[in-house]
Amino acid sequence: MNDVEVEVLAEPEFADPVLIEGLPGVGHVGTLVAEHLIEEGDGELVRRIHSEHLPPQVTVSDSGLAELVSIECHHVALGDRDALVVTGDQQAGSGVGHYRIAEAVLDVATDLEVEQVLALGGVPTGELVEEHAVLGAASSETLIETLESSGVEFRENEPEGGIVGISGLLVGLGGRRDLDAACLMGETSGYLVDPKSAQALLGVLQELLEFEIDLSDLEERADEMEDVVDRMQEIENQNVPTDDDLRYIG
Amino acid sequence: MNDVEVEVLAEPEFADPVLIEGLPGVGHVGTLVAEHLIEEGDGELVRRIHSEHLPPQVTVSDSGLAELVSIECHHVALGDRDALVVTGDQQAGSGVGHYRIAEAVLDVATDLEVEQVLALGGVPTGELVEEHAVLGAASSETLIETLESSGVEFRENEPEGGIVGISGLLVGLGGRRDLDAACLMGETSGYLVDPKSAQALLGVLQELLEFEIDLSDLEERADEMEDVVDRMQEIENQNVPTDDDLRYIG
Amino acid sequence: MNDVEVEVLAEPEFADPVLIEGLPGVGHVGTLVAEHLIEEGDGELVRRIHSEHLPPQVTVSDSGLAELVSIECHHVALGDRDALVVTGDQQAGSGVGHYRIAEAVLDVATDLEVEQVLALGGVPTGELVEEHAVLGAASSETLIETLESSGVEFRENEPEGGIVGISGLLVGLGGRRDLDAACLMGETSGYLVDPKSAQALLGVLQELLEFEIDLSDLEERADEMEDVVDRMQEIENQNVPTDDDLRYIG
Amino acid sequence: MNDVEVEVLAEPEFADPVLIEGLPGVGHVGTLVAEHLIEEGDGELVRRIHSEHLPPQVTVSDSGLAELVSIECHHVALGDRDALVVTGDQQAGSGVGHYRIAEAVLDVATDLEVEQVLALGGVPTGELVEEHAVLGAASSETLIETLESSGVEFRENEPEGGIVGISGLLVGLGGRRDLDAACLMGETSGYLVDPKSAQALLGVLQELLEFEIDLSDLEERADEMEDVVDRMQEIENQNVPTDDDLRYIG
Repeated sequence: MNDVEVEVLAEPEFADPVLIEGLPGVGHVGTLVAEHLIEEGDGELVRRIHSEHLPPQVTVSDSGLAELVSIECHHVALGDRDALVVTGDQQAGSGVGHYRIAEAVLDVATDLEVEQVLALGGVPTGELVEEHAVLGAASSETLIETLESSGVEFRENEPEGGIVGISGLLVGLGGRRDLDAACLMGETSGYLVDPKSAQALLGVLQELLEFEIDLSDLEERADEMEDVVDRMQEIENQNVPTDDDLRYIG
Repeated sequence: MNDVEVEVLAEPEFADPVLIEGLPGVGHVGTLVAEHLIEEGDGELVRRIHSEHLPPQVTVSDSGLAELVSIECHHVALGDRDALVVTGDQQAGSGVGHYRIAEAVLDVATDLEVEQVLALGGVPTGELVEEHAVLGAASSETLIETLESSGVEFRENEPEGGIVGISGLLVGLGGRRDLDAACLMGETSGYLVDPKSAQALLGVLQELLEFEIDLSDLEERADEMEDVVDRMQEIENQNVPTDDDLRYIG
Repeated sequence: MNDVEVEVLAEPEFADPVLIEGLPGVGHVGTLVAEHLIEEGDGELVRRIHSEHLPPQVTVSDSGLAELVSIECHHVALGDRDALVVTGDQQAGSGVGHYRIAEAVLDVATDLEVEQVLALGGVPTGELVEEHAVLGAASSETLIETLESSGVEFRENEPEGGIVGISGLLVGLGGRRDLDAACLMGETSGYLVDPKSAQALLGVLQELLEFEIDLSDLEERADEMEDVVDRMQEIENQNVPTDDDLRYIG
Repeated sequence: MNDVEVEVLAEPEFADPVLIEGLPGVGHVGTLVAEHLIEEGDGELVRRIHSEHLPPQVTVSDSGLAELVSIECHHVALGDRDALVVTGDQQAGSGVGHYRIAEAVLDVATDLEVEQVLALGGVPTGELVEEHAVLGAASSETLIETLESSGVEFRENEPEGGIVGISGLLVGLGGRRDLDAACLMGETSGYLVDPKSAQALLGVLQELLEFEIDLSDLEERADEMEDVVDRMQEIENQNVPTDDDLRYIG
């Protein structure tokens, strides 16, 4: 096996293709969006990327099938445009690995004549948020304007410290390849998987790429998460000694 | 020295060969089984794999002989089939190293026309267990069925988080090479070397590969370990103040 | 992308060129000096070094533009000499990476016929200092003499433990290439960004390279930092219990 | 610069050469012996090994000269035999680095027709010791016998966990190259630089290689260390409350 290997599984036509990346990260926001697109959009697996820079690991399916950790690229039709949706169970395990895998993903994109790259993720706020803004960073001024008109916010000094990992590299290396590349990050607490932030991000994507998609599945998951949060807060409240508890000790 | 080097030490015939890997891991279950097969089956060392991806270390024998850490492959006759038993003192020291060594082991397997790969290990339960089930994960549905009929259990969401290290890679990369590959994992507490779990795993192997092997050695070690556990529990009990101790203080 | 890539952006003439490196380090002293030279000297970006050995990261500008982390080389005229000023947001992320990037920087230097290398940094004193001496280490006795006559101090056993990172390597590897190479380190507490130490270092550079530069910008930043330190000390004093607080407890 | 580079500085004749390695490790025992041999034996620097696998660092001499961290090989005449004494400020910074540098050292040895390799080090006892035994591990039975008759002890299960780093690899990789290779380890507490253990190790070397060397320098350093230890114990005793201190509290 080479350093990075791209397995070709299908060769459908791609109309005006856009790459949408949603690998695991803060709040799993990017992954939730990417998986939702694949599921609702009836995605077809077209490429699989294997690499020794990914963790040395297999995932095991419910039936017991073991599969090598990989990056998967699906074809998904979104309105008039076709998306190459990039997702997977893991990011690379080292800095060099991040570069190598980002380059391999961009090679696939170039091969399929993709001209626009959208790297999805979450940006941690450190506290539970009601409103989930979508922040952006992009490779060109023109793209920033387009994104702003679709509801993406650009704020000074955010995200602080820049963007790390494959999302950052897809924009940075994509920009160097003259692709229109942007990172779109849904605000999220950073403590929990966040389907609400994913919904906000999908709202921006629908506006930007002009397609419609059923969000009921994500809404359900968001409701479930809210129940989880409610129960956690109840438990926490029970552990705080009340006045009555303290009276007994005194 | 190259990245990975395979030293050829013997070239016996292999009939219907199966690769059995037992490198160090949880409860040393895989290692105990592999070493037991080599000892009882009078194994012949046929390959030795050296690599800079293994720790920079020599082991020292009782007589003072220093030997470079390596992966050893023995020929062991098991009934009508011949096994290539892969064991060693250490796994690789990095993610990339795990991939490189797994590929080297599979190259040896391919070279010897191995068509089935069984990666052995332990799965931690977090508590002392009486019954040691053997869990599985495999590269194909057909193999899952075969293994189930030999007593291997396939459970949803187990092992959680997939399988990491060379055992996972032998199944994942082996599957990609169209080998019948499976990981067989004996349940074990995860805190101690576990010869009982190794016995359970050997029971499954005997059923699956149709051979018989003397288990008295492992039984002895299991009895010894039980004595160790008993003594540890006694010591622990002695450290807990009894009612009598407390009376004295009071 | 290769291991390390040098992008050529401009090819101005370099008269009697000297390389001045100021990548992030202790007290950001080197970075402050390098950035001040580029700003005041109206630097022209001539080379950009990209590498998978740099962190997998983009920085985001105030307007939202994402840019891949890189090492930047500017042309700056300093009196009769031209400087190649090397700066950036990050150093390499591994030991091997430090070597690779230092070699790439020296290759650029060789290409531009640089014969003198000055690696700038800070040396931590562990306490707030009023006087900021500039310590040195150099690749030859002759250079040590020249530096001493420009106000650089050479002290036994300082810096203890040698010099680590790209500054150390530019001197060590530069010396092996027969370049006149030195590390100039401004004394600094090590806890804060230190524009005063940067001023001291610039004083030495002006003397050594015979140029004049406006320092008012750094003076302003030094005043700002002093205000920050004053406020921090006030807060700290408020948290120390006074005699009056203690009386109450007693 | 390549991965590892060997600089040739001199080509003296080597009679019946033996490689003696003393890179930094437990109690600096190996380094003390190697440096003592070079100083007393008026060693000549014949090879210098540079590598990106060594830490990215320069050392600074008392006069301010910066020198890239390297492995140095000196020619030292020891009685009728010539030694290639290998020392330096640092070991490699990674597992792969240890292998690469050990191979480079062995390449130098092969080039100079060395047939015997002695890797020196310390073995930690965890407590201050009066008698400093020298333990061994070797690549062949014959060498074990020779070493035993020179006072080296071979003990079951020692050193526990084998030998890690370049000393282990010189023996392990040296053995694979059919060199007579051994690791000689002076017992030492593991907490302090230990010139007494170095003396014990030099005693064994003198016996084994049949040469004589002045030990007064090491004796002085041993006396100094004893003073340090005495003073440390005094300070420790002063901090333990005596009966008188306790009376006051009671």
